[in-house]
Amino acid sequence: MADAYIGLVHYPVYNKNREVIASALTTIDMHDLARLAATYGLTGFYVITPLEDQIRLAEEMVEHWRRGWGAAYNQDRGTALSLVRIAPYLEDAVREIEGEQGMRPLIIGTSAANGGERIAFSRMKTLKQGEQPLLIVFGTAWGLSDEASAVCDGFLEPVKGPTDYNHLSVRSAAGIIVDRVFGQR
Amino acid sequence: MADAYIGLVHYPVYNKNREVIASALTTIDMHDLARLAATYGLTGFYVITPLEDQIRLAEEMVEHWRRGWGAAYNQDRGTALSLVRIAPYLEDAVREIEGEQGMRPLIIGTSAANGGERIAFSRMKTLKQGEQPLLIVFGTAWGLSDEASAVCDGFLEPVKGPTDYNHLSVRSAAGIIVDRVFGQR
Repeated sequence: MADAYIGLVHYPVYNKNREVIASALTTIDMHDLARLAATYGLTGFYVITPLEDQIRLAEEMVEHWRRGWGAAYNQDRGTALSLVRIAPYLEDAVREIEGEQGMRPLIIGTSAANGGERIAFSRMKTLKQGEQPLLIVFGTAWGLSDEASAVCDGFLEPVKGPTDYNHLSVRSAAGIIVDRVFGQR
Repeated sequence: MADAYIGLVHYPVYNKNREVIASALTTIDMHDLARLAATYGLTGFYVITPLEDQIRLAEEMVEHWRRGWGAAYNQDRGTALSLVRIAPYLEDAVREIEGEQGMRPLIIGTSAANGGERIAFSRMKTLKQGEQPLLIVFGTAWGLSDEASAVCDGFLEPVKGPTDYNHLSVRSAAGIIVDRVFGQR
């Protein structure tokens, strides 16, 4: 069984007008995805932003819950946030995983949009049984830019309900995707 | 196929010390669960709080995205938030659904804890094919109080990953549960 990681990209992502931006860190996303990673036994959760003040914010937030006042208040948050790793760029996360695993991870992008060749959820179940580590990448704001997408080896099929509405939050989408791939049902 | 609803209870829920409290409304939860309900074709999403200032906040937030500045900025949020209904107590939501459907809904609680008789996710797939409307109830803070639980007809099995860590956010848990029950896979 391969080790698996998730990454949340804050740059380069698109805004509403398809301009490349760096989105602001959302501490609630960090908590939610860290708790998700802990629940599903993932090896690490990369918070990806090159902005130095945002990196400091992420580090302080993790520190607060792991060793600060938060650790005494709610130990479970520290357990989850111990999975957080901070990387300036997606490529840095990939390199770190490669160093740790001795093998480059299979980098799988996610997008709510249709189009292009997609990896089915059923195929992911097979991939996770293999040797190659997995890195599933989520975009914030209006999604991964073309530049970030180009780093990915493939894209997962979009999460679909029975409607045409496809505007889940990244928190919901990440939960659903991780459960579909790593959940026991 | 039954109509389905979700409800997010802010009172009565437990705090960390198992005292009954009214939790504060989180606008991010309202957005996330409304977008989830829209994606999966649910009929309504009840935000349940008896606190008058919180009811006003919920109403203003919905109004902002449906008809205010937010409607022009991002129409998709208005579409999702049009599913929001505000009810002081869980029983009020049940009564409103009963009036609308001509039949009391099957009220299904959720909890991260083990114990008691539980409804399997596979059983939910059958229930949703039936005639009786469904209302799936989520608790905020440390979960539904015994009083709120007593209103439920049954409890869904907890969402489990391959670890013992069971502290998902209500946003993640709701996404995973709604996808498991109403998702097409």
